[in-house]
Amino acid sequence: MSMRDAVLQALKEKNGEWLSGEMLSESLRVSRTTIWNHIKALLAEGYEVESSPKKGYRLSSPPDILSPDEVCPGLACEVFGRKEYIYYQEIDSTNSQARTLASKGYPEGTLVVADMQTTGRGRRGRSWYSPRNQGIYMSLILRPVLPMKEISRISLLVAVAVAETLEEELDLPARIKWPNDILVNNKKIAGILSEVVSDMDGIEYIVVGIGLNINNQLQDFPSDLRTPATSVRVEDQRLVSRVKVLQGLLVRLERRYFDLLAGSFEGTLEKGKSLSLAIGQELKLDTINGVIIGQAVDIDDYGFLLLRDQSGIIHTIMSGEITILS
Amino acid sequence: MSMRDAVLQALKEKNGEWLSGEMLSESLRVSRTTIWNHIKALLAEGYEVESSPKKGYRLSSPPDILSPDEVCPGLACEVFGRKEYIYYQEIDSTNSQARTLASKGYPEGTLVVADMQTTGRGRRGRSWYSPRNQGIYMSLILRPVLPMKEISRISLLVAVAVAETLEEELDLPARIKWPNDILVNNKKIAGILSEVVSDMDGIEYIVVGIGLNINNQLQDFPSDLRTPATSVRVEDQRLVSRVKVLQGLLVRLERRYFDLLAGSFEGTLEKGKSLSLAIGQELKLDTINGVIIGQAVDIDDYGFLLLRDQSGIIHTIMSGEITILS
Repeated sequence: MSMRDAVLQALKEKNGEWLSGEMLSESLRVSRTTIWNHIKALLAEGYEVESSPKKGYRLSSPPDILSPDEVCPGLACEVFGRKEYIYYQEIDSTNSQARTLASKGYPEGTLVVADMQTTGRGRRGRSWYSPRNQGIYMSLILRPVLPMKEISRISLLVAVAVAETLEEELDLPARIKWPNDILVNNKKIAGILSEVVSDMDGIEYIVVGIGLNINNQLQDFPSDLRTPATSVRVEDQRLVSRVKVLQGLLVRLERRYFDLLAGSFEGTLEKGKSLSLAIGQELKLDTINGVIIGQAVDIDDYGFLLLRDQSGIIHTIMSGEITILS
Repeated sequence: MSMRDAVLQALKEKNGEWLSGEMLSESLRVSRTTIWNHIKALLAEGYEVESSPKKGYRLSSPPDILSPDEVCPGLACEVFGRKEYIYYQEIDSTNSQARTLASKGYPEGTLVVADMQTTGRGRRGRSWYSPRNQGIYMSLILRPVLPMKEISRISLLVAVAVAETLEEELDLPARIKWPNDILVNNKKIAGILSEVVSDMDGIEYIVVGIGLNINNQLQDFPSDLRTPATSVRVEDQRLVSRVKVLQGLLVRLERRYFDLLAGSFEGTLEKGKSLSLAIGQELKLDTINGVIIGQAVDIDDYGFLLLRDQSGIIHTIMSGEITILS
């Protein structure tokens, strides 16, 4: 264990009580100056360590930052975040960084996570508001041996995993606005941006980006958002542990992903349909090919939306922007 | 005009005749040492310049290298190779380099071309044999505003453009082995590797890589190729200008590509069907999902192969490896 880790562990073991610098210095057999240098480094990492000349040091517990120190010990995954856990206090965009790493050969399950994004990206060139320590900003590298057609299944399973994490861990009535938004009470709480590199024969890698609003307050959101935004805190008037939410999310993503690879998608599809806001609704769908108005009939076995237009023709659609009319 | 360009132009104007170093030095008003340094640089670029103490310098004409100096003057394109023409005497892989450039924002129509690849790539992780000055090794960056489903159309139009260049410029009976190989007399003369970066809403960019065997001799090919290889020289017992073939190819690619963007794909589809080896044949198709044996019935409007299996079911297939059985 490094000296930094030893200092952090000693602080954590006090469970929010004071720990004297003298005791710390003696038990770790280093000078008080060395201790102070490590404390400063922990502060720079985002740990909230109080210091008092008389009482010593105290860690406000539990520290809710998304570093591997905090997330990995309680992470019940085999692969996701296990092989490579790449953490930034601040980065431009976790998806951009994950794409760079993927192109360098980083393996399946590599997790890129940040406590803040300066230029977080959403679909269609939009930005994702990513203030420090308020949300989860993560991107996962996947390397499935699948044809391109299966990509919509992965998109659906990610949406299902995010929604069920909000339901099961936080008791929030999360719903999927097909294909990539997660809403609570008709306000957007999470967005998904899946970027794919493929050739005609199949997928080389996918970067699955997730932005999830946790402890944001309503007045913190930009006022010009297309869809009203919300967060766990806005819906539920409480601060929750981002660390626990991330752990819960990664476990669900991993389970549903490996189910898909093993040929079992039925459960995810049924869950996705039951969580979907669109099915049965009259809606306007804005696609890259133009606008279609009609009724969402179903989500098919590949995760595509089936939309019956006014002349009765059923369109099979991979992606688009839904506006619900009914 | 740079001094290098002035020296090259003076050599070219002599049409393969000798040009004395003294005259060159006087007309360009630089020392004979400076002239000699530029000649050495041109030699290093791949120009074949003879030198003689008495006669001076002579350029073996026409120099058949794929540099912008040689290709751009006779290139009848508006966009392809016009905005960015990036040439290497030698590179690892033009597709890898084009992907790097595309991720940095290089525009549609950027052409990466090399006279040699050290690790030329083909489909399914295979290599593409790319000896110096014998073939055309090129990659083109495209940024079409199209949904992912259209990608097979682009794949088909590239195959059509390569095959018709061989037909029209060189009078070779080129055929398409769906989806990505071009054959002459059942031997592989060209391969295509299209790599795509996309999200659910559409294509961010495509890198279209083409490897085309021109002046290779039969004994130069590796002996362990899966499909027998050929070249223009092997088929036709002549050396042809790679520069002219590249110009002809780029013009046809550009025309068919902008036709597609303008909504006109019918002509390319019909041409693709007429050039396709597969239609009507009994074949084995090896896909990422497994092997199907059946009869190729047609290529549909999206460039997908329609294959009727032994139980009469018609499969719609985006990509695979064909083995013709009948």
